[in-house]
Amino acid sequence: MKHFCDIKQLDAHQLNALFELADTISKTPVSETKTWHHGKTAMGLFFENSTRTLMSFQLAAQRLGMDFSALNVAHSSTQKGETLKDTLLTLEAMGVDTFIVRHNENHIQEQMAEWLTSDAKIINAGDGTHQHPTQGLLDLYTIRSHKPNLASLKVSIIGDIKHSRVAGSLIDGLATLGNQNTWIHAPAPCLPESSRAQVAESMEQALTDADVVVMLRIQKERIQHLDTAVLNHWHENFGLNSNNIQWAKSDAIVMHPGPMNRGIEIESAVADGAQSVIWQQVKNGVLMRQAIMHHLLTQDPQGN
Amino acid sequence: MKHFCDIKQLDAHQLNALFELADTISKTPVSETKTWHHGKTAMGLFFENSTRTLMSFQLAAQRLGMDFSALNVAHSSTQKGETLKDTLLTLEAMGVDTFIVRHNENHIQEQMAEWLTSDAKIINAGDGTHQHPTQGLLDLYTIRSHKPNLASLKVSIIGDIKHSRVAGSLIDGLATLGNQNTWIHAPAPCLPESSRAQVAESMEQALTDADVVVMLRIQKERIQHLDTAVLNHWHENFGLNSNNIQWAKSDAIVMHPGPMNRGIEIESAVADGAQSVIWQQVKNGVLMRQAIMHHLLTQDPQGN
Amino acid sequence: MKHFCDIKQLDAHQLNALFELADTISKTPVSETKTWHHGKTAMGLFFENSTRTLMSFQLAAQRLGMDFSALNVAHSSTQKGETLKDTLLTLEAMGVDTFIVRHNENHIQEQMAEWLTSDAKIINAGDGTHQHPTQGLLDLYTIRSHKPNLASLKVSIIGDIKHSRVAGSLIDGLATLGNQNTWIHAPAPCLPESSRAQVAESMEQALTDADVVVMLRIQKERIQHLDTAVLNHWHENFGLNSNNIQWAKSDAIVMHPGPMNRGIEIESAVADGAQSVIWQQVKNGVLMRQAIMHHLLTQDPQGN
Repeated sequence: MKHFCDIKQLDAHQLNALFELADTISKTPVSETKTWHHGKTAMGLFFENSTRTLMSFQLAAQRLGMDFSALNVAHSSTQKGETLKDTLLTLEAMGVDTFIVRHNENHIQEQMAEWLTSDAKIINAGDGTHQHPTQGLLDLYTIRSHKPNLASLKVSIIGDIKHSRVAGSLIDGLATLGNQNTWIHAPAPCLPESSRAQVAESMEQALTDADVVVMLRIQKERIQHLDTAVLNHWHENFGLNSNNIQWAKSDAIVMHPGPMNRGIEIESAVADGAQSVIWQQVKNGVLMRQAIMHHLLTQDPQGN
Repeated sequence: MKHFCDIKQLDAHQLNALFELADTISKTPVSETKTWHHGKTAMGLFFENSTRTLMSFQLAAQRLGMDFSALNVAHSSTQKGETLKDTLLTLEAMGVDTFIVRHNENHIQEQMAEWLTSDAKIINAGDGTHQHPTQGLLDLYTIRSHKPNLASLKVSIIGDIKHSRVAGSLIDGLATLGNQNTWIHAPAPCLPESSRAQVAESMEQALTDADVVVMLRIQKERIQHLDTAVLNHWHENFGLNSNNIQWAKSDAIVMHPGPMNRGIEIESAVADGAQSVIWQQVKNGVLMRQAIMHHLLTQDPQGN
Repeated sequence: MKHFCDIKQLDAHQLNALFELADTISKTPVSETKTWHHGKTAMGLFFENSTRTLMSFQLAAQRLGMDFSALNVAHSSTQKGETLKDTLLTLEAMGVDTFIVRHNENHIQEQMAEWLTSDAKIINAGDGTHQHPTQGLLDLYTIRSHKPNLASLKVSIIGDIKHSRVAGSLIDGLATLGNQNTWIHAPAPCLPESSRAQVAESMEQALTDADVVVMLRIQKERIQHLDTAVLNHWHENFGLNSNNIQWAKSDAIVMHPGPMNRGIEIESAVADGAQSVIWQQVKNGVLMRQAIMHHLLTQDPQGN
């Protein structure tokens, strides 16, 4: 594995090795991890606005000793008519070791990886509605830290599955780890045409006996096709609250990739409650990004 | 002291200890101070535009070995409907050690400090019209370097006192150090309802025998309630020039927090003259910010 | 040489010493060059948008161990009415060691250098239509790596010479190295009033037996005085393509400072062809910027 574009690149063995690497990193002083890749450079190329994910990658890179910079896309040469390929090859020629790329076009990172001519790496930080594989890693790692036997868990993902790259990566990762009890629930226009997950017909079916409940952010800009009536009543029909969470197992954990719309997809009492592992997800995000960057940078040039 | 939100948190003993720490830092090679907090991270959360203060904190953090990043507030999750509390807790979960916060709302940093759940620190880089405590520290430190007996000096602060967090922090700090000879002068709408400083009725009264003259920046956006006539004649009525500076002691020092409106609150001949210590203030700003960050980061978790 | 504002500051001996320094740096591990100026700070002051050049300087500074920051000019104090001189002196007082300045006004960096009161350095990253001296250095260094005897080469520069600071610095540098065979070609409104280069009347005259072909970017915002007809037919009259390149020597190299307008000043087949050294230019840009910064920072304070 030379680049990391899609969580499906990783088999169960590789996923578990990355989780163990993250465990090791979490126990290693930053003063030591900062020596691992001192002098290397990571660069964020974010063609969609983000601060949360960009900052998480920045902190991860810096804790590995790398210099981090972010291209100001609004002022960049692509705005002067330069092709994306030429922009990438320019930055590669400057000696950037790892590119962290977010783009609204599906699969663009795989294309970019083919353009590169050196050992530089591409990490997908979100492509369109397709994948957000480091989010998938951090979600799996967070689940594993509470419920190590991932194959046997009932995991329910609720929200706009169809347009969610978060859901896409998590569902694929769970399947890789042998989980056959992954459920999705959403209004019909927010369901994908096909999925490796099972479709729950109701919140009750989704939540009953769930071990893990993943609430997705409603991204109003992505679901313009929805009736206003559906949006206005989202919380009562598809939101998680202190009542319906009781259908889940009493030790179920509640997850959300953030940023949260409190009172819409999730009630504050649940987001801030004892079952919420939302801040652990954020913390684990930095760890898993350290792990994947370290993994890519320490392979031999053939990607073995 | 776990956070630094208000200069009134510090008593005279603590202020002097910080000044001595800044003296020590100024004599320590950067190559050494860079080892003090290597691997820690500082983050600027500036909800009001600034480059001067943000850059000063950035350089201070980097000279202590910290990684520095600034949240791009315009693109941040708070723009996507996330609450300020959730944004802060997200960044805290990523492992940020010190938050440098500027906000247009008075006292917001104290609120933010209560939300934190880890040992992360908050430093106030300006809240509304209330406090700018690191500016107060650097002003006091600059005065002290020229006139060590701060209690006995006549200090005159001239400009829009009412809306100036710079004046607020300096007046409080001088009072803590026992100074009872602090004066303010301004047109009536720019005077606070109450102040620990005495109100001078004229430039002559303010300047006569002054040891320290502090000119404030006219911030046109904050004094829209003033008659245009007052603004248009500001320099002749409330500006410092080569004539009225002669009322002050011959060895008086002239200060300004910057950026200067030359020809409005201060004449260039004075700003660039022998009595001006304006660039020393800027230099001392980095030092005092190193001092306060180092102080907060080396206390025990209980803030002792 | 204390500052680097104009490539004409350097004689042939000094140019060759810088090229040898870049050779040395290219063979030195980053882990070692990062110790050379650890703790020093470089700052980009870009009053014109750029990402390519700014990023190149940032990577160069970081590989020398420096902390790099870029002033956000749009939010800076100059927007609050502060003079450029006061902004510069403020940042100098904060202890910045090297300023990298791009500005639309010719010769402004020389003015800024006179304002400084410390040992801080100014490096010109482009001033108006005048000079872009580090681009000149990297162009010469790239030519030298392929054809070491620079004095004897036929070098042809094609495009809007009149408004190109890239052409200005390259022509001056070639003259310093004894080259008397430098040619320029452009439509009449894009030719300078006078030049040390010879004017070719046609693409055939410019390209025939050329050793080096330098294509300039058409900057539409700078050539508004040109007839639309000239712009619309630029490629057929002044563009480089797989046919006319055959007038040049078979081992001629093709250069472009980027970003490229593919299909306008250069055909993709040539840009991506075997004679293109465009990505080497980018790579060499970081090296030569490391070299010039290291050179300035290791001189004695008198600039010897």
